[in-house]
Amino acid sequence: MTGSLENSMHREDAGLESLLSSVVPVDGDFAARAWRRLDSLTKPPRSLGRLEEIAVRVASVQESVRPSVDRKAIVLAAGDHGVVSEGVSPYPQDVTWQMVANFIAGGAAINQIAAAAGADVLVYDVGVAADLSGLPGVIHAKVAPGTRNMAEEPAMTLAQCRAALAVGAGAVADLARSGYSLIGTGEMGIGNTTAATALTAAYTGCAVSDVAGPGTGLDPQGVARKVEVVERALAVNAVDRLDPLGVLAAVGGLEIAALTGVVLGAAAHRMCVVTDGFISGAATLAAIRLCPAAAGYVLPSHRSAEPGHAKVLSALGLEPVLDLEMRLGEGTGAALAYSVIDAAVRVMSGMATFEEAGVSSA
Amino acid sequence: MTGSLENSMHREDAGLESLLSSVVPVDGDFAARAWRRLDSLTKPPRSLGRLEEIAVRVASVQESVRPSVDRKAIVLAAGDHGVVSEGVSPYPQDVTWQMVANFIAGGAAINQIAAAAGADVLVYDVGVAADLSGLPGVIHAKVAPGTRNMAEEPAMTLAQCRAALAVGAGAVADLARSGYSLIGTGEMGIGNTTAATALTAAYTGCAVSDVAGPGTGLDPQGVARKVEVVERALAVNAVDRLDPLGVLAAVGGLEIAALTGVVLGAAAHRMCVVTDGFISGAATLAAIRLCPAAAGYVLPSHRSAEPGHAKVLSALGLEPVLDLEMRLGEGTGAALAYSVIDAAVRVMSGMATFEEAGVSSA
Repeated sequence: MTGSLENSMHREDAGLESLLSSVVPVDGDFAARAWRRLDSLTKPPRSLGRLEEIAVRVASVQESVRPSVDRKAIVLAAGDHGVVSEGVSPYPQDVTWQMVANFIAGGAAINQIAAAAGADVLVYDVGVAADLSGLPGVIHAKVAPGTRNMAEEPAMTLAQCRAALAVGAGAVADLARSGYSLIGTGEMGIGNTTAATALTAAYTGCAVSDVAGPGTGLDPQGVARKVEVVERALAVNAVDRLDPLGVLAAVGGLEIAALTGVVLGAAAHRMCVVTDGFISGAATLAAIRLCPAAAGYVLPSHRSAEPGHAKVLSALGLEPVLDLEMRLGEGTGAALAYSVIDAAVRVMSGMATFEEAGVSSA
Repeated sequence: MTGSLENSMHREDAGLESLLSSVVPVDGDFAARAWRRLDSLTKPPRSLGRLEEIAVRVASVQESVRPSVDRKAIVLAAGDHGVVSEGVSPYPQDVTWQMVANFIAGGAAINQIAAAAGADVLVYDVGVAADLSGLPGVIHAKVAPGTRNMAEEPAMTLAQCRAALAVGAGAVADLARSGYSLIGTGEMGIGNTTAATALTAAYTGCAVSDVAGPGTGLDPQGVARKVEVVERALAVNAVDRLDPLGVLAAVGGLEIAALTGVVLGAAAHRMCVVTDGFISGAATLAAIRLCPAAAGYVLPSHRSAEPGHAKVLSALGLEPVLDLEMRLGEGTGAALAYSVIDAAVRVMSGMATFEEAGVSSA
């Protein structure tokens, strides 16, 4: 190991420790103030249902009864997975870089859905196997050109995992400095439902067969193969669920670790983070295992059709905003939920009270 | 009866007949073309779940694989209900006109949610008991200053009911001429969950006690009184479910009949109409009973927490976009769903195909 890499590793060690220790739990007392304001507005009390709960959550994080989510971004982290050599995806690995090029060109679903929500999409190459250095518009933060095959050895070294976490946390720090008020997670990586399945099984203790699903489109035989590969990966790496960072390094992914960093970074910056589907959910589970206080900053956007996501949401103890049987990733669910969150926040910040409007109450 | 009112009634008769006969069923064959385009786009097939179904519905109505919902409006119809004298609402009747003033001033929930979706709100006085002629910003289309007490006599005459229908259909005609591409329903009227309960029970045959709910906030005793009042109204008026217009006149409302006209007008203009919650749902049920072919143009926005709405949705055979336990009305659910519909349409119209983006398929 060279001196400079060793120094860099020490910096990253300190970085993660200092990140975790900077997360302050959301102040539960603030919610009561937020509910008082909502109940004073010109509508029957609680008649906006979950929309009011969402507003209270954002208000509590921002410690304001006039919260705002004016500037919204999706951090879309891309990375490749060595485990694709086990035949766990119907798509070739090249699709990862091809889709990164598609994100930059504006042709993907996330581009359209983010545009509808007025959100910016920032595309990070955290671990794509192809050389994307010539592709303008990508934020170049490659830690390694893909992970290793987790069915044979750890997907990442601890140093790589920490470096990927730092990419995500750094992305949030940049966005916070630029005035963004809502952050969402997105990912692209052929094979990453396999990594998310392994992480979810490891963190929750669920049987792999209860977590694994078709991903981008495996048939039942393909899902059975995925189960076998994940079970092998968990055994080969002897993962210990009480070591959340070790689990993430052994059976995670570079883009997944980056999103774990996004969740932790958002919590450290006291921002709400809107998590997407199953893969983002596994990254969030890693973040909450590393730092339980971060949970108060998380708003899950939707319930993915991928069966493992229900296990993730149940482990997080959080209800998603939408349930539209989506299973695409890229941050599409997060961007779609932005409009609902935006509306919830505007209701709380912009409506008149019964007194202001001269409306009789019940 | 004066000659001019008689003439006007003949015109309205002809108006409704001509409206109903101008509704063409949505072309089912177009859906196959819409699905072919969606399956060619850079995402695993059907991975956007219900979002793709919504896009196909709009595409089928617009007969375009590049649909658009750029200009969106909520038609918010207001009217009062004579049945409030039976004590069916915890709020005084004055709240109807006070809330109309609040809509115009921009202080209500619908103003905030519509603004978030980039939708315009058009407020129609179809039957408010107070004189609003001095309130600028309201579209003055008052048919009568509130309905009569349906527990004692028909809420409206057939002529009033037809006139209110014509207000809604006329609103859509105006919006279509102005280039709007998506119409939503909203309402305000103290006592109107009682009318919606009566309509739903009459059209579906469900027991009144299975339809009635707390509305703006009745306690169980209040709900029991509402059930008794609605049962009395259905008996006194001897409603015949095979006479949908007679049912609407006897136990509906002026703002409800206007929304029935909005649904029929949207279908006649081959536009999607996004229906809000329970009261809008009852108006939609009336429209579909009058003209079953209109159903293909309806997109229900959300499932209201008001229990009768589930009965309405089940009778319509349509799945809503959102389920956020909302029960406010005003068009808030419709406006909230606009963002999801907008995103669905942009996905279909704006994404690149695998071929265009140079992405390998499975």
